[in-house]
Amino acid sequence: MSSAIKTAYEVTADDEAAAGQFAERIALEQSAELPKQSALNQPHPVPLGDVQSVRQISGTRYRIEILFPAELFGDDRLQLINVLYGNVSLLPGIRLVEVDWNAVGEMFSGPGFGIDGVRKQMQIFNRPLSCAALKPIGLSANELVDLFYQFGRGGFDLIKDDHGLTNQQSAPFEERLESCRVAAEEVQQERGQPIAYVPNVTGSPDEVRSRLELCSKAGLRFVMLSPHLSGLESLTWPQEFGLGVLAHPAFSGSMVIQAESGIAPWLLYGEIWRAFGADGVIYPNAGGRFVLDEKDCDALNQAVRNPELPWKLGWPVPGGGIQRETIGEWISRYGNDTIFLIGGSLYEAPEGLERASASFTQTLKQQGES
Amino acid sequence: MSSAIKTAYEVTADDEAAAGQFAERIALEQSAELPKQSALNQPHPVPLGDVQSVRQISGTRYRIEILFPAELFGDDRLQLINVLYGNVSLLPGIRLVEVDWNAVGEMFSGPGFGIDGVRKQMQIFNRPLSCAALKPIGLSANELVDLFYQFGRGGFDLIKDDHGLTNQQSAPFEERLESCRVAAEEVQQERGQPIAYVPNVTGSPDEVRSRLELCSKAGLRFVMLSPHLSGLESLTWPQEFGLGVLAHPAFSGSMVIQAESGIAPWLLYGEIWRAFGADGVIYPNAGGRFVLDEKDCDALNQAVRNPELPWKLGWPVPGGGIQRETIGEWISRYGNDTIFLIGGSLYEAPEGLERASASFTQTLKQQGES
Repeated sequence: MSSAIKTAYEVTADDEAAAGQFAERIALEQSAELPKQSALNQPHPVPLGDVQSVRQISGTRYRIEILFPAELFGDDRLQLINVLYGNVSLLPGIRLVEVDWNAVGEMFSGPGFGIDGVRKQMQIFNRPLSCAALKPIGLSANELVDLFYQFGRGGFDLIKDDHGLTNQQSAPFEERLESCRVAAEEVQQERGQPIAYVPNVTGSPDEVRSRLELCSKAGLRFVMLSPHLSGLESLTWPQEFGLGVLAHPAFSGSMVIQAESGIAPWLLYGEIWRAFGADGVIYPNAGGRFVLDEKDCDALNQAVRNPELPWKLGWPVPGGGIQRETIGEWISRYGNDTIFLIGGSLYEAPEGLERASASFTQTLKQQGES
Repeated sequence: MSSAIKTAYEVTADDEAAAGQFAERIALEQSAELPKQSALNQPHPVPLGDVQSVRQISGTRYRIEILFPAELFGDDRLQLINVLYGNVSLLPGIRLVEVDWNAVGEMFSGPGFGIDGVRKQMQIFNRPLSCAALKPIGLSANELVDLFYQFGRGGFDLIKDDHGLTNQQSAPFEERLESCRVAAEEVQQERGQPIAYVPNVTGSPDEVRSRLELCSKAGLRFVMLSPHLSGLESLTWPQEFGLGVLAHPAFSGSMVIQAESGIAPWLLYGEIWRAFGADGVIYPNAGGRFVLDEKDCDALNQAVRNPELPWKLGWPVPGGGIQRETIGEWISRYGNDTIFLIGGSLYEAPEGLERASASFTQTLKQQGES
């Protein structure tokens, strides 16, 4: 049985008294969901959120700490998430910023491979990893495989599907999988260095599981999933098939783009996804098309690789805003235990995909090993 | 095969030119996910979002319409959701407000019962329905059943679990199901009017399915699910077991509480949930503890009961802010095809739960039939 779980939220309130009332309200909303008097007036004591502290952090912003008894969630992971942020997701001005996972560590398996396991799979021990993306939707499996060869011969370690590639008629899942499997084996042979095709398996549970089985039989190492489309629990399945998993943020953004509401990005992507099993967490890098700033990204990287959490360490997978010219700076900032995801920018390179890939991955290797 | 799907977003932009650029960016982000030139420079044309119009609606707010080709999603419901709001969920200042479901109607089953089917199950044809909630977590199955009897003898039509009741040791799912099933049969016999116990079945897919099977075997009519915890696809499963389903908004709120970002509440709750199979959509009523206003609620009610969408009509299930004294006004505003959900407030009634319930449900019946 898990023990009580310590949490912290940041809330907006006019003064400390109001912040205290807000804290009491959250503690009740996320436990008994009854008015205080009714919650206390039960045949016997029932588990209630317990406000531990209220502290001003700036102007109208307060940090509140609440302890939730384990009886509220038992051994149910989704119910724990419900206690942390179920109904209060409907309230503005409250952001979940901290969870003490050590109390509930055994409820979650964490990453199956983690940083060390992925390094072992890829036989790369002293530098960051590189990842490219196959796109756009509408290309045939053969055309996508042509891209795969160019990225692969250009030195990329991982080559993933675009998160929108599912089972479209243009490139059905099984056909894509078989073509990329063959290409990966060929490129691996050529270059004498492992390469991993990472197919997107987002779908209904039955689809995800049948695709995971196909991936496992094809000898693949990793898959990609969008847990906010297929459900957080879907992150736990690749491990059952001996596969690692990169988690993609599609459909999750509303939770992290509000500075004063939602869930802090480092907590959702770096800790919750890692808890559910993500070996790598894909996130929109600072300087790219989306809104996380460098502080958010640093905090996320730290969270997903935090050795004090009760699971294997996960990989940050920043995407966006990374070019050959800037990769050195990003490696200095983010460190070697990072998978750098290059999306659309390579497709624009005048020298062609393979040469642009080679130039990028060479720079990454040199900078990473230096 | 579905055809192209028309969508509308509202975006924040300084002027019409900027709004037009934003629109192009969304159209590309949600299709090729490549820079424009790369998207056009493919071996053959690929499906791209196509901006149909850009129109100022107020100050810095613009309505943009985008057509997405069916080749982007094929017959995959989650991939359609991904096209509608996958990556752009990570952008502030953009809100999905309209989807033309008629083009993709056959991809979704919609509600299994709908308004007529639920009325037939409940044998109530000329008034709104009432729903009470069993809580708090921590009570035993016997103690929850005691509440069930009081609500049932007090005249409630539906009695649902709190959305936090899963399989806690205090009241394990199977024990709760069996106790409430017996109580429902007894109360139904006493009062000669159907009563429905609506258990919460939110969980992992395996848990949800095994609980749906238990519910079906127990002769239940309805269950409750939180689709943002268990995954949108989970809303499609109760129908396979002959069960209707109420959808609960836990963990979904970040999407609907931002006026300028996310998904409009009527669209997420009233249309997307209905498409996936919700017979009833539970939402935080105006005047309750959360933030939807009366205009949002009216629009949501209209959406879930919109006869022009290609599915059976669903029930709005407003919760919060409804008392015996005000139920008449809410019925006038929301109409008879509404399930009024009474949460914590009855628990505070000095006259006791059964008498307070009777007073509320009597008023609802009189006002609804008048």
